[in-house]
Amino acid sequence: MTASASNGAGTTWRIRFGGVGGQGIVLAGRLLGQAAALHDGKEAVCTQTYGPEARGGASRTDVIVSDDPVDYPFVIEADVLAVLFQEAYAKYRDCLAPEGLMIIDTGLVNADNSDENVCGLPATEIAEKLGNRVVTNVVILGYLVEKTGVVSRDAIEAAIRATVKPKVIDLDMRALEAGARAARGEDPL
Amino acid sequence: MTASASNGAGTTWRIRFGGVGGQGIVLAGRLLGQAAALHDGKEAVCTQTYGPEARGGASRTDVIVSDDPVDYPFVIEADVLAVLFQEAYAKYRDCLAPEGLMIIDTGLVNADNSDENVCGLPATEIAEKLGNRVVTNVVILGYLVEKTGVVSRDAIEAAIRATVKPKVIDLDMRALEAGARAARGEDPL
Repeated sequence: MTASASNGAGTTWRIRFGGVGGQGIVLAGRLLGQAAALHDGKEAVCTQTYGPEARGGASRTDVIVSDDPVDYPFVIEADVLAVLFQEAYAKYRDCLAPEGLMIIDTGLVNADNSDENVCGLPATEIAEKLGNRVVTNVVILGYLVEKTGVVSRDAIEAAIRATVKPKVIDLDMRALEAGARAARGEDPL
Repeated sequence: MTASASNGAGTTWRIRFGGVGGQGIVLAGRLLGQAAALHDGKEAVCTQTYGPEARGGASRTDVIVSDDPVDYPFVIEADVLAVLFQEAYAKYRDCLAPEGLMIIDTGLVNADNSDENVCGLPATEIAEKLGNRVVTNVVILGYLVEKTGVVSRDAIEAAIRATVKPKVIDLDMRALEAGARAARGEDPL
């Protein structure tokens, strides 16, 4: 995986989560941004766009993680596109950079054969087997962080511990590990 | 209250919430953005910026609500600045537009006498009297929406109902009404 060059000396990751309401992609983006900034010493911006077409349709959360301050927070071309909803796949696939990585929930999204660099896991199904589909977003995060290294595993764990309710931390940690195991080619459960 | 002109025929509201972790300003911004887009037919963008300095310090959530698509989602000059933390007041007060409105939690923020267009309410105290300080952000939202009309009361109520857990909807509605009553000069409780 490659990140795009930024204006400064460092690197910039441009990440888009595409899904539908209730899948927790806003929280996924926020956890990634906080992990980068608060625990890995980077700059991060998280943007949600709401338009009239968003009612029940595909929605997105963009996250930019950079060694330098972020000038322009919209993601025009994504280094990583994580999609959990077929309509979001159709809407956002063209924003993926030529060398970019597409991550899909294989239980919910059918990617076209012409797409390159597609990988994924049945995140929703894994979350259900762990006990609650609300951690689908954390399964995806575990996968994404393991595949890309955009933030450290310690950083994303610290962001989760600082953000979610105490009673769900244990479930979130298992979801994160399940996603990471899938990214390493191991049985996630 | 005035909104700034946008590039198109309509108007644009640039709103910044400044606070500290745990005050729920990210959710406040998100509710406002969803109210505008999903229920009032406008465009909205919500942006959170995370930097290494954010650890325990002032943080912000920017919301832009417009009749037209939003080209640039950062708020450079705010039409409305709502601050719930003294350090956030100090950090962001200079971003307020000349005719802009500053809203403060009067229990937590002391504004300078030189500031114009400052108004506010003891939002945290009101939330505690309603039963839980976690609805401080909704008290502020009720005040802001009543003062500015940036979104309709129906829209913000619908966004809350669609977003929060069923068991807290009633408390949130009372918090929203308390903020609105304060904005109308009535006893909030």
